[in-house]
Amino acid sequence: MISNAAVYRGDKTFSLEQKHVSAPGSGEVQVKVAYCGICGTDLHIFLGHMDQRVGFKRTIGHEMSGTIEAVGEGVDGLAPGDRIVVRPLDHCGECPACRAGHDHICHNLKFIGIDTEGAFQEYWNVPAHTIHVLPADLDLSHAALIEPLAVACHDVSRARVRPGEDVLVIGGGPIGLLVALVARNAGGNVAISEISESRLAYANKLGFTTINPKTSDAAEQVNDLTGGKGADVVFEVSGSQPGVDLMTDAAAARGRIVMVAIHAKKPDVDMFRFFWRELELFGARVYRPEDYEQAMRLLAEGVVECSSFITDIQPLEDIQGAFEALTQNPSAIKSMIQITRNDT
Amino acid sequence: MISNAAVYRGDKTFSLEQKHVSAPGSGEVQVKVAYCGICGTDLHIFLGHMDQRVGFKRTIGHEMSGTIEAVGEGVDGLAPGDRIVVRPLDHCGECPACRAGHDHICHNLKFIGIDTEGAFQEYWNVPAHTIHVLPADLDLSHAALIEPLAVACHDVSRARVRPGEDVLVIGGGPIGLLVALVARNAGGNVAISEISESRLAYANKLGFTTINPKTSDAAEQVNDLTGGKGADVVFEVSGSQPGVDLMTDAAAARGRIVMVAIHAKKPDVDMFRFFWRELELFGARVYRPEDYEQAMRLLAEGVVECSSFITDIQPLEDIQGAFEALTQNPSAIKSMIQITRNDT
Repeated sequence: MISNAAVYRGDKTFSLEQKHVSAPGSGEVQVKVAYCGICGTDLHIFLGHMDQRVGFKRTIGHEMSGTIEAVGEGVDGLAPGDRIVVRPLDHCGECPACRAGHDHICHNLKFIGIDTEGAFQEYWNVPAHTIHVLPADLDLSHAALIEPLAVACHDVSRARVRPGEDVLVIGGGPIGLLVALVARNAGGNVAISEISESRLAYANKLGFTTINPKTSDAAEQVNDLTGGKGADVVFEVSGSQPGVDLMTDAAAARGRIVMVAIHAKKPDVDMFRFFWRELELFGARVYRPEDYEQAMRLLAEGVVECSSFITDIQPLEDIQGAFEALTQNPSAIKSMIQITRNDT
Repeated sequence: MISNAAVYRGDKTFSLEQKHVSAPGSGEVQVKVAYCGICGTDLHIFLGHMDQRVGFKRTIGHEMSGTIEAVGEGVDGLAPGDRIVVRPLDHCGECPACRAGHDHICHNLKFIGIDTEGAFQEYWNVPAHTIHVLPADLDLSHAALIEPLAVACHDVSRARVRPGEDVLVIGGGPIGLLVALVARNAGGNVAISEISESRLAYANKLGFTTINPKTSDAAEQVNDLTGGKGADVVFEVSGSQPGVDLMTDAAAARGRIVMVAIHAKKPDVDMFRFFWRELELFGARVYRPEDYEQAMRLLAEGVVECSSFITDIQPLEDIQGAFEALTQNPSAIKSMIQITRNDT
């Protein structure tokens, strides 16, 4: 099978190539990819930040939707034509994390589409255990939001947000916005702290209280909003030192902070405040199968306004331009690549 | 009533003075103090680190035991002669933390013996709600360990240590050792990381696995001890940057870290590791009433070998020398001051 594919060749460059894709092996499924969103991690790869991990001949991409084209030997319960998404995690099953039931943070986890071949290509073989079958009426372009929405579901489940709690989301990019939507759906009173005016405008349009820490004291504003209590739950999604400062400054006594962002550099953290207010911090990485199931439910229920959240959809031929635009345009929310056209 | 008292006068100096102590007011109890241990915080005060908070006319001290001398109006269930300890926390009852049921981390918490008068004096008036009555057969010198032991009980309860879990305690001073003892009593397999040879020797004598991070790679040793898994629970009691580095390096996937130490300066913290291994961090400050009750139980059960843990007991007249010795002698575990002699 010949598959049109985007291949990351280093130096901010994708080349469009035709790859030979073999028939799905035992326990594998061959997917015809419909849509694949551009993740912040994909942008990092494009910008060369992850060359050592990714190399220069990889097809990346993991925020996808598609249909099953063929199934390999020993695959039960899945059939060609099934509309699906892939949970792009391949664990070893043998390390201490896997044995403790935390296989999504397996010590040897392969992230499909980063550590192995991804979804910016027409035909894609993946392990059958990664497949989630979609509800019948879910649009495939919308379904490509399930992966980032599952991240948000996982983050909110780590925080155990309860109805009526005050929630602060630090960073209003795509993941921050999805976290805010899921936290609001769980009953939280959600405020978003963000410095980009266009993102603030979108967050306002979605009905969130917004805070711009460039123009006001964000911790003071959270205190004002919560009668001096502080936020019961804080999501740090900014990946910045000011975000890490705010997460402790704005948290209530026994406040739960979820570390969503990837901090490549060790930030200074106010450990005295952790002690003083008995704050709690929870790292959150990717998702569990139940987060995917919840994301599909929430999408079906309309918790995400997909029509405004998906800012643009471009064909695979234009992937280079789509990535270039994203490195320059801070007003896009989610840019998506349409991989194949004959949606079923 | 005339009370012999040690008064902190600044500049590493206690003066011995005779204070007038009034009769206990409404809701108060007058305590005749028997013993009062020297806490790390008392040493900080002695060294001038907390002058702004404490001032230069305060009698400090809070790790105490004693008997009730008199009770004020409206105090029920307590009587002169009762052998007691004081839980030295006075909360406001009105702030968001108090209203949320976390009055031990009240926004306006007064720590009795730091923010108000303390126990390095013969007669001491305290709110009746701070009193815990001792079991009949508990030695009053041993009972003066209840306060630090309650800290350890609180720390271990924050970590929810389960039988069979691998526990690392970073820092083997008095609190670290008590945390290790309580964690072992909860069923943990406990290792202690410490750089002082004399403390390591005492920890060994108590039967703990010990690690000296000055002479070996502590994280690697924890990995070796746990089959590559890492510690399920880590207590950071060192208050040092290397301790903060080790707490993330040595923790298992979903490992729970308890921040016991007071970090006056913001350390660098490996937030990537929090994300990557979904680590959890819990600030822990002072104690709840149930921690005091547990500490009394554990002391009565002999979980702490008091005869070796209490390194020396000196009379109130010698408090200046006792504090001076502690600033020089790293081999002492718990130094205690005997305040009055006629124990009942």
